[in-house]
Amino acid sequence: MKKWIEKASHLIEALPYIRRFCGKIFVVKCGGAALVDPQQLHNIMQDIALLHFCGIRPVIVHGGGPDIGAMCKRLQIPTQFSNGLRVTDADTMEIVQMVLFGKTNRALVTALNQFGVKAVGLTGQDAAFMQSKKFIATSDVDADVDLGFVGEITDLDTTLITTLLAGGFLPVIAPIGIDEHGQAYNINADTAAGVVASKLAAEKLVMLSDVNGLYANIDDPETRLHVIKAALVKTWLNEKHISGGMIPKLQACLHALDNGLSSAHILDGNMPHSLLLEIFTDQGVGTLITN
Amino acid sequence: MKKWIEKASHLIEALPYIRRFCGKIFVVKCGGAALVDPQQLHNIMQDIALLHFCGIRPVIVHGGGPDIGAMCKRLQIPTQFSNGLRVTDADTMEIVQMVLFGKTNRALVTALNQFGVKAVGLTGQDAAFMQSKKFIATSDVDADVDLGFVGEITDLDTTLITTLLAGGFLPVIAPIGIDEHGQAYNINADTAAGVVASKLAAEKLVMLSDVNGLYANIDDPETRLHVIKAALVKTWLNEKHISGGMIPKLQACLHALDNGLSSAHILDGNMPHSLLLEIFTDQGVGTLITN
Amino acid sequence: MKKWIEKASHLIEALPYIRRFCGKIFVVKCGGAALVDPQQLHNIMQDIALLHFCGIRPVIVHGGGPDIGAMCKRLQIPTQFSNGLRVTDADTMEIVQMVLFGKTNRALVTALNQFGVKAVGLTGQDAAFMQSKKFIATSDVDADVDLGFVGEITDLDTTLITTLLAGGFLPVIAPIGIDEHGQAYNINADTAAGVVASKLAAEKLVMLSDVNGLYANIDDPETRLHVIKAALVKTWLNEKHISGGMIPKLQACLHALDNGLSSAHILDGNMPHSLLLEIFTDQGVGTLITN
Amino acid sequence: MKKWIEKASHLIEALPYIRRFCGKIFVVKCGGAALVDPQQLHNIMQDIALLHFCGIRPVIVHGGGPDIGAMCKRLQIPTQFSNGLRVTDADTMEIVQMVLFGKTNRALVTALNQFGVKAVGLTGQDAAFMQSKKFIATSDVDADVDLGFVGEITDLDTTLITTLLAGGFLPVIAPIGIDEHGQAYNINADTAAGVVASKLAAEKLVMLSDVNGLYANIDDPETRLHVIKAALVKTWLNEKHISGGMIPKLQACLHALDNGLSSAHILDGNMPHSLLLEIFTDQGVGTLITN
Amino acid sequence: MKKWIEKASHLIEALPYIRRFCGKIFVVKCGGAALVDPQQLHNIMQDIALLHFCGIRPVIVHGGGPDIGAMCKRLQIPTQFSNGLRVTDADTMEIVQMVLFGKTNRALVTALNQFGVKAVGLTGQDAAFMQSKKFIATSDVDADVDLGFVGEITDLDTTLITTLLAGGFLPVIAPIGIDEHGQAYNINADTAAGVVASKLAAEKLVMLSDVNGLYANIDDPETRLHVIKAALVKTWLNEKHISGGMIPKLQACLHALDNGLSSAHILDGNMPHSLLLEIFTDQGVGTLITN
Amino acid sequence: MKKWIEKASHLIEALPYIRRFCGKIFVVKCGGAALVDPQQLHNIMQDIALLHFCGIRPVIVHGGGPDIGAMCKRLQIPTQFSNGLRVTDADTMEIVQMVLFGKTNRALVTALNQFGVKAVGLTGQDAAFMQSKKFIATSDVDADVDLGFVGEITDLDTTLITTLLAGGFLPVIAPIGIDEHGQAYNINADTAAGVVASKLAAEKLVMLSDVNGLYANIDDPETRLHVIKAALVKTWLNEKHISGGMIPKLQACLHALDNGLSSAHILDGNMPHSLLLEIFTDQGVGTLITN
Repeated sequence: MKKWIEKASHLIEALPYIRRFCGKIFVVKCGGAALVDPQQLHNIMQDIALLHFCGIRPVIVHGGGPDIGAMCKRLQIPTQFSNGLRVTDADTMEIVQMVLFGKTNRALVTALNQFGVKAVGLTGQDAAFMQSKKFIATSDVDADVDLGFVGEITDLDTTLITTLLAGGFLPVIAPIGIDEHGQAYNINADTAAGVVASKLAAEKLVMLSDVNGLYANIDDPETRLHVIKAALVKTWLNEKHISGGMIPKLQACLHALDNGLSSAHILDGNMPHSLLLEIFTDQGVGTLITN
Repeated sequence: MKKWIEKASHLIEALPYIRRFCGKIFVVKCGGAALVDPQQLHNIMQDIALLHFCGIRPVIVHGGGPDIGAMCKRLQIPTQFSNGLRVTDADTMEIVQMVLFGKTNRALVTALNQFGVKAVGLTGQDAAFMQSKKFIATSDVDADVDLGFVGEITDLDTTLITTLLAGGFLPVIAPIGIDEHGQAYNINADTAAGVVASKLAAEKLVMLSDVNGLYANIDDPETRLHVIKAALVKTWLNEKHISGGMIPKLQACLHALDNGLSSAHILDGNMPHSLLLEIFTDQGVGTLITN
Repeated sequence: MKKWIEKASHLIEALPYIRRFCGKIFVVKCGGAALVDPQQLHNIMQDIALLHFCGIRPVIVHGGGPDIGAMCKRLQIPTQFSNGLRVTDADTMEIVQMVLFGKTNRALVTALNQFGVKAVGLTGQDAAFMQSKKFIATSDVDADVDLGFVGEITDLDTTLITTLLAGGFLPVIAPIGIDEHGQAYNINADTAAGVVASKLAAEKLVMLSDVNGLYANIDDPETRLHVIKAALVKTWLNEKHISGGMIPKLQACLHALDNGLSSAHILDGNMPHSLLLEIFTDQGVGTLITN
Repeated sequence: MKKWIEKASHLIEALPYIRRFCGKIFVVKCGGAALVDPQQLHNIMQDIALLHFCGIRPVIVHGGGPDIGAMCKRLQIPTQFSNGLRVTDADTMEIVQMVLFGKTNRALVTALNQFGVKAVGLTGQDAAFMQSKKFIATSDVDADVDLGFVGEITDLDTTLITTLLAGGFLPVIAPIGIDEHGQAYNINADTAAGVVASKLAAEKLVMLSDVNGLYANIDDPETRLHVIKAALVKTWLNEKHISGGMIPKLQACLHALDNGLSSAHILDGNMPHSLLLEIFTDQGVGTLITN
Repeated sequence: MKKWIEKASHLIEALPYIRRFCGKIFVVKCGGAALVDPQQLHNIMQDIALLHFCGIRPVIVHGGGPDIGAMCKRLQIPTQFSNGLRVTDADTMEIVQMVLFGKTNRALVTALNQFGVKAVGLTGQDAAFMQSKKFIATSDVDADVDLGFVGEITDLDTTLITTLLAGGFLPVIAPIGIDEHGQAYNINADTAAGVVASKLAAEKLVMLSDVNGLYANIDDPETRLHVIKAALVKTWLNEKHISGGMIPKLQACLHALDNGLSSAHILDGNMPHSLLLEIFTDQGVGTLITN
Repeated sequence: MKKWIEKASHLIEALPYIRRFCGKIFVVKCGGAALVDPQQLHNIMQDIALLHFCGIRPVIVHGGGPDIGAMCKRLQIPTQFSNGLRVTDADTMEIVQMVLFGKTNRALVTALNQFGVKAVGLTGQDAAFMQSKKFIATSDVDADVDLGFVGEITDLDTTLITTLLAGGFLPVIAPIGIDEHGQAYNINADTAAGVVASKLAAEKLVMLSDVNGLYANIDDPETRLHVIKAALVKTWLNEKHISGGMIPKLQACLHALDNGLSSAHILDGNMPHSLLLEIFTDQGVGTLITN
């Protein structure tokens, strides 16, 4: 019995956070290994289901992970990367779309529905809500490579998302954009999550991937920063203290924080319940970026 | 960190219950020692606040406890009981009303609001929603005693309660009824809770008092019944296996179960988090009565 | 029959006023002897019920009157006044709350409901709608006296009131404020009525007490002013032409007129139907203050 | 001052009736001399405006009165009556429509708007809400006369009326019906009022004309019946105790009382404020017919 | 079959226009010969019905045409014109009202209803929505002639129109204004249509009369302008290049284009389907005036 | 010009049909060659867009066509059919899902959005709205073959579809069902369309495939039936007059007609504008089945 009372007291510890975030929109970007391991996917969706039933309104944006590469390989479509971006010709775009929406998105939607959440999958093609155009890299190095159907968002109409939220549904978005001729584009999931968060004026944008935050000294795990100001992140980016996949994540966070988002989180999706711990405890388990 | 992950996993254990009861109405009757000890009152209101923020819609009905007697004594108004019911003359009725609504109800409302719940206190006089009449005892023994302004409910209009629930408020009801001449009546809180639960077609009626359920053998604490059928409770009442304050509680539960309520609980308010444990675990810590 | 036709023609005389005020909010402050004499209370509530059924939306704020003093005396709690304000220690605050809400408020609510109005009683503790803090007197004289739990309003959330009005209910407010620690405060009813009126952007604030207006010459009953400009009232207050209980009433009116109220009235609650006569006739029976 | 207080007390006398009829629909049929004399029209519309502002929802159906005959005469269109019904050929129908809607209806709408009511005129042609067909007299006597475009209602769609009521408008209906070919029909105003009242499930149908009720002995003004049961009216009609224009009025009342109407009134529009007196006093000034 | 496929392809040609104007308000002024010839009236109403069912929201304002003159003649009321405006004494105003609303308006409403549209006729007297005053001609020539009850609009309350549109009804407005004393005024239909269009912030104002647009050279039918800028129309009016009935039409268009209207059209109502052709083809069949 | 007027008159011919079906739900099943040829897909979606903008509310259910087989072949997954049903093992189910939703559905959604329609793609996995279970063939012949994840619908929750329709969106459904364990099932598109149509109580179910109806004599194209009673279709099915892919189509139609659908159509998607011709002409170009 004592064990049970202790359990109940843990529920009570979450009360101030539940109260504080009740009715607020959280945009959660799911990527990395979490999308590969079914058990981990199950766990993360369970955490998101709990947020949903506690009155928080999550919106998910997800990447595709290694499934796209695997399918390309299986179909003998050659894969090329330029500066971390997948060169996306017409054949590749077809595969991106089929895997991202026809497989990954279905897996997330199904996992959530298993917990009683009414999840609904979308791409930016639905109601043409994510208007996009061909992405033209600005740096000198990339200028010669045609990235094909890699796109950037030009406009985002939130009506479909807010209609679904108002109906009690949970939108799960695969970041495929669309232009006025009906051409689909492969959009970076971090960037898409940032735009969705700012357009919805979300309370939080949570980047759930394979790293658990920013470090004062990248080689010393003890130096993880619990909280960091957006301005300092900007400085670090300018001074090129940050590298690799963390760059688009941080750029997406900064852009959203500049445009109506309240706070952003960098979080490790591989750690059990990292999402709940970041939101329902004071010190958190990742890095919180604020204005 | 391991401790934290364990804590989070306790939150997750509550998920199936939160999901199941989301949007449902729980009528909680608060009585007994819980209303006397400020710390206990604080704890129970905290549990109710958690239910509220998890999407459950609690409605509270409360008794007055020893405060009424204390004030009568302080004002030298003689107190008389007949068959467990307070003989309520005009002077006593005035004190009942002042203490029950002007003191106890304010304490509950204030405690809930401290947790961010928008609690609103009511008596049956507000919008005259609890129509009542003088209670006439039917048993031979009582026939000679005039109980004064002890009343019974003749009709209950739920419009005010549902207006408040729809606005996100939590109604806290002191069981004072009213008749067509504006006369106030002292209504038994258990009975009132039962009528409120059935008229709202509530999911659960929780009787929170000083006892933690029904026993096969009242002298053996090991024989507490986790679940019991309403029909058996009826038999036990008819065969007079039950005595004292448990009788009106069970009668109220049976009446509500006969009129739209889904399930009733007898629970010990003195046990920490008994409300959460009864609702968020399978075996519970009280007695569940079902049809 | 002729008598009847004459009666009907009196109804018709009210038509232009009913038409003009249809759907408008009137905040009526009830205080003084009117709260003591049951017949007078009945009459005033009847007038307010008529306004309600004619499409006007009244909101009542009431004081406590002599009942509080009587109860303090009965319980041998010493009463002390400083500059017209009741020194309110913890014991006294408990009595204020019990009498004001558990007795006076119940009497008003019941009287209104007798006329078919759906009146609902509130204090600032309900949904914590009247945020308050300890009142610190600014004048030198009072500086040494600790007034205890006498409070002043720091913020007023009208959501609960407007939810009730939208549902067709009539809010009856006992002016007890609340701070962030759950401490209750005794708020001056005139001041509270003024804040409620300005926050609701009311059409009228009616101060119903024992005096029937402002006089050019206080000793000459013939010199009552039917209308006076707020600016002149301000001058009179600065020049100390006004004294006693009229000061807070006028200050409340001026504050509300400065913050969205359209017009304020000083009216004698002892005069039969003074409320109807002030509203439904051109010359009125009190003093109208306008910007 | 005493006079004023007396006036206010007359307002208060109306309170129980205002309360009772608040939100209810009253269908008022205006006909007879009241439509001829501008002063009388003004008075009746003023009474109706008062009902409107007291929360009652009046719907007016009006006849045409002598104006139609006058215009026919002026245009030298011969007028023929058969059994009290105007034989309505195509020319006459055009005149009926122009005078009834282009003149009488405009006068009523304008008079009401002068009192601040938002009155809106309609015929059954608007939104084709009053579906009709040629009236075929059933009695032997009439069988040989073709009444032309005299019609009877076959269906009534209340959507337009309820849309206007919900918007706070007061519908004023000229009883012109329409068939599926767009042909207009002249409908008896009493009959139309009865159908409107029953389809709206009105609280009251008031027949305002030149007679003030039913008499036990038609020759003795002292024998006016204040209340009469519908069943007895039926008997009287069958036994041919009733004659002339009273027959269609009573038939319309009985039909509506059989189909959802609560009560019907026969009232003299020439008597000042007869409408208010019938509604706001117990004994009334006409005859009330109830089931 | 080939014929049928071709027919269907004509429907498809209209798709981009239907899509573009879906939900937009079109104010159509109907005047001239179209109101005289029943077949033409039928055709125009059919076109408007099609717009209505394609999701466009038409509002009709109509003139009276020769019917008013005919009735005046029949009733031997002398007719006088001053500068193109009918001198409207009290007798004439009564005839204008009866014919315009009791005859013409009924014909339009009935024709529309035949196509399943729920048309509802109005004048500015309904809900007093078109506040007006006596029109005082400003030019020297007219100064001596009293035009009687010719009026100009002082204010227009769109609540009644928008209530009807929201309910799916189609308003058909006869331009009779009203002043605060209840006096009716004869308003120029072109002017009224312009005010209605600007107050509703309509997408289009269509002037449907006997001319099919503006000409560079009035004597050369080949010089019709498909599109013209409002500024140029202004210049032409100032330079008196325009004459006769076209002047008020163009003034109404310019006034509305200055006050929220998007585009205006001058169109020949006598040409079959001119309304559809102007809206559903690029080059149109009249003259389009834009800012 | 004459050509234009003729075009406009073709629009007008559609008016009675547009009027009749305004606001009604049409479920259109798209299958066969129409899904393969991009031009044909474009044309059909254009027709559906026109219906949408004319106020009809289409809901699309689509099959997968030859794309699934092509992808299976490309990935060297062996394809097996049993009695016309694709044997669907886990590998095949993954391909079905990716192609059907990640490719075909995206093509339909994109084509519709090009015409300004706000189309939104769904499978029965979204909000788990199409509850399904493993399909067990009942005939003796099939009993030995395990069809794998071929499913049948056990329950269909229309909330998601009606939420989207109410928001002005057009749902495009790929018939993948889901069971309580999250297992996806391949559902026959004809059957799914029938269930969707009956659950939505649709006005019409249109089966758009490669055949243009039912024939009295299958070998004589002149004997196509324009209309046939459901009872006769039932007889023909029982007597095995029907064969091949037409059987499930007709069974789906009959099931829906038995459960709330008004009428069903068998239509050739290869014929230009067959959808418009069937709906907007009296004789139609397919076969209409009615109760």
